[in-house]
Amino acid sequence: MNSASPESLLEALQWRYATKKFDAARPIPAPVWSALERSLVLTPSSYGLQPWKFLVVTDPGAKRSLVPHSWNQTQPVECSHYVVFAARRTVDEAYIDRWVALMTSERGLPPNALDGYRNMMVGGVAKGMQGSRVFEWATCQCYIALGQFMASAAVLGIDACPMEGIVPARYDEILGLAGGDYGTVVACAAGYRASDDRNATLKKVRFPAADVVTTI
Amino acid sequence: MNSASPESLLEALQWRYATKKFDAARPIPAPVWSALERSLVLTPSSYGLQPWKFLVVTDPGAKRSLVPHSWNQTQPVECSHYVVFAARRTVDEAYIDRWVALMTSERGLPPNALDGYRNMMVGGVAKGMQGSRVFEWATCQCYIALGQFMASAAVLGIDACPMEGIVPARYDEILGLAGGDYGTVVACAAGYRASDDRNATLKKVRFPAADVVTTI
Repeated sequence: MNSASPESLLEALQWRYATKKFDAARPIPAPVWSALERSLVLTPSSYGLQPWKFLVVTDPGAKRSLVPHSWNQTQPVECSHYVVFAARRTVDEAYIDRWVALMTSERGLPPNALDGYRNMMVGGVAKGMQGSRVFEWATCQCYIALGQFMASAAVLGIDACPMEGIVPARYDEILGLAGGDYGTVVACAAGYRASDDRNATLKKVRFPAADVVTTI
Repeated sequence: MNSASPESLLEALQWRYATKKFDAARPIPAPVWSALERSLVLTPSSYGLQPWKFLVVTDPGAKRSLVPHSWNQTQPVECSHYVVFAARRTVDEAYIDRWVALMTSERGLPPNALDGYRNMMVGGVAKGMQGSRVFEWATCQCYIALGQFMASAAVLGIDACPMEGIVPARYDEILGLAGGDYGTVVACAAGYRASDDRNATLKKVRFPAADVVTTI
């Protein structure tokens, strides 16, 4: 594999910022978006269970309808692709069995080869997590996807803005999730920065490494 | 900026896998680790508040002591750098003021320029989140860091394994976090795969994109 250099990775991560104003006239080209969408699908998750849905909003009307439930920020309409991360509310044995069946067939394994793994997931998740605990766990998995998505976008030179200031219940209604198996957790706008986005020129600030990294 | 191609990004994300057996004799070179550590520091977070600590464990004794609290998995000892992600348990006005003071000085702003932003963070986090809610929110931010870290490692050709099967309370004791402002959330081993890691050759399996991505 042709790996990136440490310098080019850091250049990309330093280049990215929370884009406030996107260039509404500039869509992400299809092959680039395709890779970003694939980065979502390929995100690692606990047990491999992928307890998520990614709703990619590109329809202008749907984008507009999200603005009032996003603290009236304009990223949903001005960006190219607006991704809503939704987490699974429950994980039952049927869901786990669907995952085990897929792994078994994709890897060409004998029918019961993954029984131990299945039982671990049933004990650890389906039966082991009570009440809202599954949703909290699935929410964390969605945040792995958010992290992988933003890093991937940076590496490809695509601007992004994570959106935590949203009203999940309203998003659920608009996106057809209400009452279903998945609930809105967080969103991320992706596209290209507008030439006059003032945030683009602000110095990136982080706590000193010595404050947040401890080597043992 | 010299961006990566969609193909090279996908090659890296497809190449990575949850490494079960690391080559204990092969450390990550210092310049590569330095970039990975910087990817942690640069992780985007809610309000920019960075409510985390990253404990990088390289000491053999400390690594060994984590194994019994990691379902006896061997990644902590065999990997090169073992990163423990710890989330802040509380965020008070003093913490927010430290962040505001740093931004104000780094960006050369007048003393009260960020008052509105400060009040938003105090209302949204310090006063707005009750009980364990701050820790849950900070935990999500740690998972963004985990996602960015794993994607960054893949892009650099470094193997990694996310570790959710750990006992946070025992980690806290061993790492000196118990009773402090931060609590262990998740970990990630980084290094190089052993030549005989059987997991390296398993087919990567994900639900079909049509099942997890919905375009609106």
